[in-house]
Amino acid sequence: MAVTAPAPAAAEAKAQMPRLRPVAGNHRIAIESVTPQIAYGRYPVKRIIGDQFQVSADIFGDGHDRLRATLLLCRAGTVDWRMAAMQPVDNDRWSGAITLTEPGRHLYTIEAWTDAFASWRDRLAAKRQAAQPLTDEFAEGVALLAEAVRYADGNGRTTIETALASAQRDAATAVDLFLAPALETAMAEWGPRRRVTRLEPARPLVVDRAEARFAAWYEMFPRSQGTVPGQSATFADCVARLDDIAAMGFDTIYLPPIHPIGLTNRKGRNNAVGGSADDPGSPYAIGSAAGGHDAIDPALGTLADFQDFVAACRERGMEVALDFAVQCSLDHPWIKQHPDWFEFLADGSIRYAENPPKKYQDIVNFNFDAADWRGIWRALRDVVRFWIAHGVHVFRVDNPHTKPYPFWEWLIREIQAAHPEIIFLSEAFTRPKPMHQLAKLGFTQSYTYFTWRNDKVELTDYFTELTRGDAREYFRAHLFTNTPDILPRFLQTGGAAAFRIRAALAATLGGLWGIYNGFELCENRALPDSEEYADSEKYEYKVWDWDRPGNIKPFIAELNRIRRENAAFTDGLNLEFLPADNPRILFYARMAVDAHESVFIAVSLNPAGDEAAMIDVPLTRLGLSNDGRFVVRNLFSDETLQWAGPQQSIWIGPGRPIFAFKLAGPSDA
Amino acid sequence: MAVTAPAPAAAEAKAQMPRLRPVAGNHRIAIESVTPQIAYGRYPVKRIIGDQFQVSADIFGDGHDRLRATLLLCRAGTVDWRMAAMQPVDNDRWSGAITLTEPGRHLYTIEAWTDAFASWRDRLAAKRQAAQPLTDEFAEGVALLAEAVRYADGNGRTTIETALASAQRDAATAVDLFLAPALETAMAEWGPRRRVTRLEPARPLVVDRAEARFAAWYEMFPRSQGTVPGQSATFADCVARLDDIAAMGFDTIYLPPIHPIGLTNRKGRNNAVGGSADDPGSPYAIGSAAGGHDAIDPALGTLADFQDFVAACRERGMEVALDFAVQCSLDHPWIKQHPDWFEFLADGSIRYAENPPKKYQDIVNFNFDAADWRGIWRALRDVVRFWIAHGVHVFRVDNPHTKPYPFWEWLIREIQAAHPEIIFLSEAFTRPKPMHQLAKLGFTQSYTYFTWRNDKVELTDYFTELTRGDAREYFRAHLFTNTPDILPRFLQTGGAAAFRIRAALAATLGGLWGIYNGFELCENRALPDSEEYADSEKYEYKVWDWDRPGNIKPFIAELNRIRRENAAFTDGLNLEFLPADNPRILFYARMAVDAHESVFIAVSLNPAGDEAAMIDVPLTRLGLSNDGRFVVRNLFSDETLQWAGPQQSIWIGPGRPIFAFKLAGPSDA
Repeated sequence: MAVTAPAPAAAEAKAQMPRLRPVAGNHRIAIESVTPQIAYGRYPVKRIIGDQFQVSADIFGDGHDRLRATLLLCRAGTVDWRMAAMQPVDNDRWSGAITLTEPGRHLYTIEAWTDAFASWRDRLAAKRQAAQPLTDEFAEGVALLAEAVRYADGNGRTTIETALASAQRDAATAVDLFLAPALETAMAEWGPRRRVTRLEPARPLVVDRAEARFAAWYEMFPRSQGTVPGQSATFADCVARLDDIAAMGFDTIYLPPIHPIGLTNRKGRNNAVGGSADDPGSPYAIGSAAGGHDAIDPALGTLADFQDFVAACRERGMEVALDFAVQCSLDHPWIKQHPDWFEFLADGSIRYAENPPKKYQDIVNFNFDAADWRGIWRALRDVVRFWIAHGVHVFRVDNPHTKPYPFWEWLIREIQAAHPEIIFLSEAFTRPKPMHQLAKLGFTQSYTYFTWRNDKVELTDYFTELTRGDAREYFRAHLFTNTPDILPRFLQTGGAAAFRIRAALAATLGGLWGIYNGFELCENRALPDSEEYADSEKYEYKVWDWDRPGNIKPFIAELNRIRRENAAFTDGLNLEFLPADNPRILFYARMAVDAHESVFIAVSLNPAGDEAAMIDVPLTRLGLSNDGRFVVRNLFSDETLQWAGPQQSIWIGPGRPIFAFKLAGPSDA
Repeated sequence: MAVTAPAPAAAEAKAQMPRLRPVAGNHRIAIESVTPQIAYGRYPVKRIIGDQFQVSADIFGDGHDRLRATLLLCRAGTVDWRMAAMQPVDNDRWSGAITLTEPGRHLYTIEAWTDAFASWRDRLAAKRQAAQPLTDEFAEGVALLAEAVRYADGNGRTTIETALASAQRDAATAVDLFLAPALETAMAEWGPRRRVTRLEPARPLVVDRAEARFAAWYEMFPRSQGTVPGQSATFADCVARLDDIAAMGFDTIYLPPIHPIGLTNRKGRNNAVGGSADDPGSPYAIGSAAGGHDAIDPALGTLADFQDFVAACRERGMEVALDFAVQCSLDHPWIKQHPDWFEFLADGSIRYAENPPKKYQDIVNFNFDAADWRGIWRALRDVVRFWIAHGVHVFRVDNPHTKPYPFWEWLIREIQAAHPEIIFLSEAFTRPKPMHQLAKLGFTQSYTYFTWRNDKVELTDYFTELTRGDAREYFRAHLFTNTPDILPRFLQTGGAAAFRIRAALAATLGGLWGIYNGFELCENRALPDSEEYADSEKYEYKVWDWDRPGNIKPFIAELNRIRRENAAFTDGLNLEFLPADNPRILFYARMAVDAHESVFIAVSLNPAGDEAAMIDVPLTRLGLSNDGRFVVRNLFSDETLQWAGPQQSIWIGPGRPIFAFKLAGPSDA
């Protein structure tokens, strides 16, 4: 009978488990339809430290034997397996969970086996019930106990030894003894395991720190943080801005490239061809005689200045996100050092970037098809490592969809293997499938189409797709209201109310949101018929009045305050749309396990006037009666209201286009 | 630039393709979300010879290069790849198809690459459109032509050579020449392929012969086909029955086990414990001194007699399906030859089958956990091989869910590798997940819960699940009205009308249906409070009057006739439920690609009286106007009716509880 390995003692289990493999032909238990998993384990699912990681599967054998199953989890590359018993749920479906405690890539799998003692005990009980002779069964029961006692430890061993001795001494009492609950418990742990089957291959899981799922970003264009017109700001100027940004409640300061900028073909104001050395040029034209991706633009300061800036952020509870733009100016040191990484024309000139008929004369792309593509990959990895060594733990990646997918998968795994705390944000404003592919391959967070989704149907459809479909396992939406490249038309035309609406949505529809500086000032001047900012600081120095009239800084601070004060905002996937009878009012909840922690949010999508709606609060799901009275607390004003019944009439104006509340419980009145 | 292999010439392609692997780090094209596939290729999808095998996938690269993709298919174990170009459909989705011509296990995969010439041509065209200088492009175009000409063949070679010569001679005409359609076609075939990426692993596909999906089975209990009471019929008696069965339109004669039957613990009438040698015993108690699974029960005849029976079936266009029951009587020769394949009790007696408190005293199961499990597997495989050698190409497998899943996967692959025409039917009346698992593992066809699904909601839900969910790729439902173990209560109580209803449903809801002999006689006597037949021929000899009054043989013959005459019945997955406003009338279509071949079927589920309903015919989908008149042809009577509009009133009585029609086209009237 015993073909498979005996039950490992707990002390041995850790060492044995990773080596234990099903005997060919003997993996008799089916483990199917595992959730979560992406493409059968080709890509990792994503979770956060502290999450309960729940895994379910169909688990069933042939015949009638009793099964047991364990969820197994370990850090990739280790053999330190953690275990949690899985329980049958319904219809051959089993489920188990382990709380995640460490960041980094993990592997999870399932092991199932038949419990020889429990199966035998079932047969014994059925025969006793039917008053059939039991003698034939006893020898087998004794043999199972004897096998278990060889491995058992602690109290379990005592229980099994005692039962074994009694059964051998006095067969008359054996049945009651065999069926005793204490023995069942001991034998479940120590009894022989037959037909041990493991799910292969183990599935990957990436566990991130909390900020991967919950953060408020402020994109700061460093050259424009100063006070002297026509001159670059420095990192010292940037430090001076931090208290103002912290007061708005942001926790991540994201900087576009801070590296030396190429001179050749430098762009002038508003992206004009033929800028001069007086123009600062686009910071995305990385590299000059002053250095490349691991150098600092001398106009901004030194590496030491940058490190002071990082320290100043940290003192305020903020961290720095750097842009990682995989491209070079024509003056980048690599072009001379590694000409084979780039493409040259027949006339010997380098091929600058173009997407005909568009030309990007100040930028050169890598040729990832080059023979030394491995050299390119390593050099770029070393750039990331360099900035990690200088205190940067978050990278926003520019246009990843125009570089090879395998490069990103390799880079992120390579970096996170040594630095599991590193966060990568994918700026892939492209078609949906490449956008999702990058998330599957490892990007921690992703830019989205939110920036262009304005009406109720669009927002409902898009966020339902992101939070209810397969994407929930791998795609973490980062909701930006604007970027240096995108001033959406809704903001160009809707005045300050439009800015409030978009901030309210971005801050409350997900876990991650961000603004690009100037948003708080309601800056809305675009180039004609374009989403490009007029006089963009991408191509010139600007000086802003950060307190200019009409700014919405207090409103943004309020949004970030209610996000911080209410734990329901930290889960990016708990969004649920609820009924409101006005197509210009979006009503939704951020549901919490504890229903009273759930937050309800109504946002008016109309920047031009007041809106009213009848909303439906799902009282019964929150443990409240549809007939009773209850108290709601306004999260902005902290005022309470007495409501009766699930249908409530609300009114929202453009001055504060959001109404957010919690249920404070049933009313005393 | 050229890192990847050059485009293989057509003559080399076959040999090269299977060896061609993406260069690590260079498989830059994503091939994702392939359909069909089961568990990412862990299990094969199923198709029939003659099917168009359509495969779709998301295919996309980084950047803007033009992609091409090919579907590749070959018999497993060969390198004889067939290819079909895939075409973009929408939103990065591509699709291609290959007509299946051979039975057996296949592998399919997708290869995608960037078409260097087409990508370059796009850039050239865009620049010309924008009146930008083109000179830099010419050298690259010439190089691409020169690369292609090294591999090109036939007309393509001539086109490319001519273009190359002209371009080298006269740059002024080069642009028009480069953009000429004939050159595009030639270069699509012969031009350089970059970034070649192949989907890994290749996915399995099993191609079966037509009978795997479309057949009408008659289960014949051989011992009861004779005329002398109390005595076994012989194969000669069985032959005498064939014309009658052929007249009913069946094409497969399925026999329960025909092997010698054990004497020890032989069961008596109605499954009584303690039968005598005068009782024939259950044919599932396989094996006696006369032999085991490869022997013939002497009461039925000799192996030669059996072969005569097989030949007699074949002469009538029918084939034989044998039962494969993996169990032994206590007298099976293997028990003495291989005692290690079985389990013995402490007293030395063999452990017979039981599922406490139920006992199967005349049957012994194999111990698949035995050290020599490989020996058991091989012996059972050799049984199947033996019967294949004696003309049996269809096996109905008894209770496969109580034997190891890996055994079935191995057995079916092993057999079909040499004999791809062999069909395996799984009799797994068990929980849904084990039932489906066996289908995934390789069973050609599966018994279903149809036998117990009687009302409109149950039937609609169950058949929607089988034909619209993932199951459609691997689960072929075989619809039995009854079996020797199952006389459903609906048949016990509903009279002949109930038999007609169940036959009508079984014959028209899918491609595969079957009856167990006696059904055509409306035999409905059950043991009390049971689905077991009273006085079952499983345990005694019976003599039937195959023409006894009240039989429904003409009705069954009509059902099989309309199945044969209408190709829409051969596709088991083309079922579509349609509206009928009566819960006791089920209305559905078997949709055909050619809409006029579609068959519409209404079945009354009420055996006790007449039913009427308003049905909705989906005229517009069939190319007819909702306003016009049209002609329908009754498939039973061949009469035509003139109808106007999609809503029609029908009336069905228990005498013929089915109305089946085709649309014969618009009316002339």
